[in-house]
Amino acid sequence: MSYQPLVERIRAEGRNLGNGILKIDSLLNHQLDPQLMAGMGKALAQAFSGIGVDRILTAEISGIAPAMMAGLELGVPVVYARKKRPITMAGPIYIETAPSHTKGGVVELMVSGEFLRAGENVLIIDDFLATGETLKALARLVNAAHAHVVGVGVVVEKTFEGGRIALKAAGYDVPTVALATITSMEGTAIHVE
Amino acid sequence: MSYQPLVERIRAEGRNLGNGILKIDSLLNHQLDPQLMAGMGKALAQAFSGIGVDRILTAEISGIAPAMMAGLELGVPVVYARKKRPITMAGPIYIETAPSHTKGGVVELMVSGEFLRAGENVLIIDDFLATGETLKALARLVNAAHAHVVGVGVVVEKTFEGGRIALKAAGYDVPTVALATITSMEGTAIHVE
Repeated sequence: MSYQPLVERIRAEGRNLGNGILKIDSLLNHQLDPQLMAGMGKALAQAFSGIGVDRILTAEISGIAPAMMAGLELGVPVVYARKKRPITMAGPIYIETAPSHTKGGVVELMVSGEFLRAGENVLIIDDFLATGETLKALARLVNAAHAHVVGVGVVVEKTFEGGRIALKAAGYDVPTVALATITSMEGTAIHVE
Repeated sequence: MSYQPLVERIRAEGRNLGNGILKIDSLLNHQLDPQLMAGMGKALAQAFSGIGVDRILTAEISGIAPAMMAGLELGVPVVYARKKRPITMAGPIYIETAPSHTKGGVVELMVSGEFLRAGENVLIIDDFLATGETLKALARLVNAAHAHVVGVGVVVEKTFEGGRIALKAAGYDVPTVALATITSMEGTAIHVE
């Protein structure tokens, strides 16, 4: 279920930095095009409109914009997992860790117990689906709160990193939607559809 | 120029954690209410509608949501200054530092030279105006790119930390708008208007 305006922008502006690293700073990771982001939010909301989403969970930083635009369309609150504990975060905290392939080491993801509630239907949204490690950690946060992961939506999936299969293998066999799919990144080419 | 729905939410949900620290995790710094955020974006856009804004600059993390919603209304791109250099950030980078009162130490703010252009009118948006240190660092980034700071918009101003005066003293005597103003935080009280 590609979102064509995004696919075209990635074709025009994306850069292949090697080692599977896609630079789309001009539209997602540094500069944002609010109109494009609003369209992406609508496309994600449409894809998950029938499943009774109560809440969206994403991870700071680059997940915030697409998650908020989807939340605006679905009319549900958006929670962004923090990677460092802010001084305002008190009380019980759900915490999971994910290995980071682009940054090295391990990333912590934290959500305050106030903002994940038992029984809720949670849609997970993030910028990339690559190896699936961050998305799996977000899903574990949802499970820890006795809430349900009802879907996964991402801006860009890199199929050659196997994250979709890894999610399924970890038990998250839920509707999974990418607005653009990168099928290979050989040399300087970017195959996006 | 208060945005009354925000003022009411801060009255209902804000917590005074002492030392001037305001916890509004439920609507800005951890959970987002997309409808409220959209209203805030409209209010900010309205306040700066007559001055020919070309671009919005904010700082990750909590500035992203209000900046994007304002950008959506104004129809301009939004750039968020990064605090850590991502592997996709190459080429000339503008970098400034700001002392962090809530985190201690110094925070770096980086913007790729691609996304700040000479001669542009830049509106700076952030979550808080407290001491003004972060906003001054953002303004220096704009100046370093030979662009113009044409306004400053924030979600919450804490007047007792003097940031508005500090901005003016540093030469940024531009229209400065807060959607909610905290005039004092004594004991556990929060005086917001």
